[in-house]
Amino acid sequence: MTDTSFIVQILPDGTKVRARAGEVLSDVLARAGIPLSLYCHKRGICGKCAVRILNGLLPFPAALEASLLENRRLGPDHRLACRYEVRSDLTVETLPGSRLEKIAVLDTGVPSAVFIDPAVKKLSLVLEKPSLYSPTAVADSLRAHLKSPGLGLPLAVLSKLGGPILAGGRPATAVLYDDREILDIEPDDTGSEAYGLAVDLGTSTVVAELVDLRTGKVVERAAAVNAQNSYGADVVSRITFAFENPDNLQRLKNAAVQLINDLVAGMSRRSGVPRHRIYDAVIAGNTVMNHILCGVTVDTLALAPFHAVFSSLPPLPASDVGFALHPQARVYIVPNIKSFVGGDITAGLVASEFAGEAANELYIDLGTNGEIVLKKGREFVTTSTAAGPAFEGMNVSCGMLAVAGAIHRAEWDDGFKFRTIDDLPPQGVCGTGLIDILALSLARGLLGRDGRIAGPEKKIRLTDRLSLTQQDVRNVQLAVAAVRSGVGLMLREFRVPMARLDRILVAGAFGSSLDIGNAQDLGLLPDVPESKVAFIGNASLAGARKLLLSRPDRTGAETLAAKIAHVSLATRPDFQDEFVKALEFKRYSGGEK
Amino acid sequence: MTDTSFIVQILPDGTKVRARAGEVLSDVLARAGIPLSLYCHKRGICGKCAVRILNGLLPFPAALEASLLENRRLGPDHRLACRYEVRSDLTVETLPGSRLEKIAVLDTGVPSAVFIDPAVKKLSLVLEKPSLYSPTAVADSLRAHLKSPGLGLPLAVLSKLGGPILAGGRPATAVLYDDREILDIEPDDTGSEAYGLAVDLGTSTVVAELVDLRTGKVVERAAAVNAQNSYGADVVSRITFAFENPDNLQRLKNAAVQLINDLVAGMSRRSGVPRHRIYDAVIAGNTVMNHILCGVTVDTLALAPFHAVFSSLPPLPASDVGFALHPQARVYIVPNIKSFVGGDITAGLVASEFAGEAANELYIDLGTNGEIVLKKGREFVTTSTAAGPAFEGMNVSCGMLAVAGAIHRAEWDDGFKFRTIDDLPPQGVCGTGLIDILALSLARGLLGRDGRIAGPEKKIRLTDRLSLTQQDVRNVQLAVAAVRSGVGLMLREFRVPMARLDRILVAGAFGSSLDIGNAQDLGLLPDVPESKVAFIGNASLAGARKLLLSRPDRTGAETLAAKIAHVSLATRPDFQDEFVKALEFKRYSGGEK
Repeated sequence: MTDTSFIVQILPDGTKVRARAGEVLSDVLARAGIPLSLYCHKRGICGKCAVRILNGLLPFPAALEASLLENRRLGPDHRLACRYEVRSDLTVETLPGSRLEKIAVLDTGVPSAVFIDPAVKKLSLVLEKPSLYSPTAVADSLRAHLKSPGLGLPLAVLSKLGGPILAGGRPATAVLYDDREILDIEPDDTGSEAYGLAVDLGTSTVVAELVDLRTGKVVERAAAVNAQNSYGADVVSRITFAFENPDNLQRLKNAAVQLINDLVAGMSRRSGVPRHRIYDAVIAGNTVMNHILCGVTVDTLALAPFHAVFSSLPPLPASDVGFALHPQARVYIVPNIKSFVGGDITAGLVASEFAGEAANELYIDLGTNGEIVLKKGREFVTTSTAAGPAFEGMNVSCGMLAVAGAIHRAEWDDGFKFRTIDDLPPQGVCGTGLIDILALSLARGLLGRDGRIAGPEKKIRLTDRLSLTQQDVRNVQLAVAAVRSGVGLMLREFRVPMARLDRILVAGAFGSSLDIGNAQDLGLLPDVPESKVAFIGNASLAGARKLLLSRPDRTGAETLAAKIAHVSLATRPDFQDEFVKALEFKRYSGGEK
Repeated sequence: MTDTSFIVQILPDGTKVRARAGEVLSDVLARAGIPLSLYCHKRGICGKCAVRILNGLLPFPAALEASLLENRRLGPDHRLACRYEVRSDLTVETLPGSRLEKIAVLDTGVPSAVFIDPAVKKLSLVLEKPSLYSPTAVADSLRAHLKSPGLGLPLAVLSKLGGPILAGGRPATAVLYDDREILDIEPDDTGSEAYGLAVDLGTSTVVAELVDLRTGKVVERAAAVNAQNSYGADVVSRITFAFENPDNLQRLKNAAVQLINDLVAGMSRRSGVPRHRIYDAVIAGNTVMNHILCGVTVDTLALAPFHAVFSSLPPLPASDVGFALHPQARVYIVPNIKSFVGGDITAGLVASEFAGEAANELYIDLGTNGEIVLKKGREFVTTSTAAGPAFEGMNVSCGMLAVAGAIHRAEWDDGFKFRTIDDLPPQGVCGTGLIDILALSLARGLLGRDGRIAGPEKKIRLTDRLSLTQQDVRNVQLAVAAVRSGVGLMLREFRVPMARLDRILVAGAFGSSLDIGNAQDLGLLPDVPESKVAFIGNASLAGARKLLLSRPDRTGAETLAAKIAHVSLATRPDFQDEFVKALEFKRYSGGEK
């Protein structure tokens, strides 16, 4: 130990760490493995990294620091760790909730978590009063207070700055976007009311979450059938519809915007969170959905070479898109990977931390489009295949979304035994239920490998009211074959034998849990040990939520999306042959290794 | 000379310069004192730095370079100087118009010039076609082509990207703002049609110029009385008006916006330049005018401590302000210095390069407000004084703006002899004419030093129709005293004796030329040798034009505005006394030295 280093003891853990003279306490704590939540990036303006100094020097706090501590009603022995320089041996105690903690992103499948660092932050304002001898402009005081000299001020916010909100020393709160721009100045301390919207904008279904940007907690969730369905059930039919007439693009756009606004209105009503407290939205959709939402033509996606207009976009004003949130709210469209592999897949990859370590892994998203991403070591390649909406319970006579009353799991015990979502009487069958039922039917001889229903009735009876028709089975069969042929071609083309696959992640909004074995029996998933397969549920939605909560992950998403190569199945002469072979319900064979 | 250097001869000058092997030709030319116009900042995408290689290596040009040269119909012996690396002795010839040239900013008074580097630039687009094997998104191709990975794309532009403009290999043009954002994609090559708007938004009068952003040439000019006059003749009465009723601020704003839109419409009609080819505007106005234009309250300017809401602002969307220009056009509000010293003064300082060298200098702007900036060495201090609108020909019975028919100069040759603007019959008297007339009247005994008109008629007869009343003289007298007392206090307070003044710049929109001696006889200007005084005319407007043409000057303006200190005359106990003394028409005395 030299003259210029000190011992810092950190309570309640009791951890001891050495600090150089003058070292900032928050850095010392981070080095000791106890990082604090540095909400304002160590600018000393949020007050969230306050600690109690039990033993050691207590220099006078600066005026702003004193006022921040006072606002939090903390005693005179408290200081901001990001301001405090170590000049003596110390004993410090961290406060509840001040430590940086990871929030779980996925409930199921694989571990995935995030440090909360949202684009939208709220900071309370304690502006210096202008005086006759220093009549500083309000905007300049604001920039100085927020330590952001280049801070953008939209005209709408500027026109508030001279108003009563900032007059008379009353508390007020600034809403910052990405530390670059002020979205609003609000009267009173509204720091606890910062919400965001995460949306999985699927071709068939739309799921939205209202998220507390401070805690990462999902406050409300809502889902609905995509209202664009009335103009076409899949992306190709919607592209065709948009192509027919210039107004149709706007019709499709309005349908999506209106639907999301309705979901928000419902969540707002149920949770009591007013819409103007929602400042940021993240949309995970496929490329076509993203283009339509932005009112951007999908004509170029209709014809070879099927190129998109955009892949990644800077954040947009939510009002430009048409969302009824806070008037200055922003929308982040998760970057698309390629024309037919969109931001929903990027979001899923982010949620599952798929880009993490070098390995041979498959990411399969089972939606109306089946998207497949193969990681071979550190390289990424993707393709998409048209599965149709059967996995989401559509194009199936008794199909339904994975909502209350849907049969989502089935077993055989002297006949079908069903489990329904929320244990309600069965109303229909969702995607995971269909997989179970078909696999059991296959095993029991109710269904042939060629997909033909046995017996004269040509129906698989489920309950008194519910049964699957031959056409229903065919639609599932086509969906399975589309995915299987895509996976098979990718593995062969990039020379990854099934035995060398380290992991398969299966994502999909089509049900709450998937029986891996049944999916393998039908040939939907490659035949690897079940322990290597994880069903991660609606990873697109989880990814949207993660991107809502973490700016660094947005940068990661941009980088990842840009580096994934694409294989177009449509340009492959062997695809049709592969597809026809895949129509048989059976486990993956050695021939696909 | 070593093995790795070559001789470059530059025609038509014949200058010879040595170049290192591999050195970029545009750098070599710049070093030789022949800088080329590097419009696209050496990104090789504008084609404007093409030179002819008469002698030396001619490597194959890259595809984009070849296409840019072909677009300009240049022969195979031409290359882009910003791409060409010297690998042999060379003889090169620069092309007409390719050299970087300074454009004069002020026509009068002091030399001031600018290198053209506007925020808005147009670049022709030669995008790579997407192919089936590389279906790159249009926006990505665009960013790659413009070598701007982080390029912002507003939704309005994005929705054009998939449209017919970029299809089928037709020429198209991108409009870039500050190399950061695309304002538009236009069909055809519109590179020659890039215009900007420079506005001097004065309290009494508004002057606008339509400027060619490529050449710096003023295409049209228009002026009008500020329509806000109907709500009050000076800033104080307009602040009061705005204070009375929340709608009044909007009324004032609308008056200014409508007036500027009308001026633009007129210039557009006369010049044939359509409004949607105007992409950028620079507004030089005082703090109150700037606040009103942005719809920002001026209440805080009404009462002590008279603080402004903003000093500098990021560029705003012109449509948010209400201007009818290109829908995505931007507006740059020249940064205000302090509450009562605005962007018009900053612009004037920029135009006259006042911040240039260390010296003792005065900058005096004679408008409705008299603003004074004192430079002492490298320090700057400013103040403002309420002169009233007499210098602009208002509050004077036969006063008028400095437009056609105004008496702007007077001499005595057995009676008044007048010169009028455009040599039309005299319609009235503008500011410079008033200075001449009063100085001559003083010398001839028609007017006493106390401002009393001699003789029983109490009128100074000018023509059969025109004469000055006692009240007219009083109004000019008050204006002169306001400026004189301000200047006197500043010089005394900052200990700059008149003899140590290196230069006085007099700016003002009030006439086309000022007789310095007459102004000194009245006591309007300090008594220094005439050679040290320059009348620089409407420097605010010239500064707005300079800031329209040069991004680096915008950075300079921000820095300068932020560092000028302010003295409030209102808080000075000795100001009233000084003002009363200054009411006498006489040359500055030793007492003010």
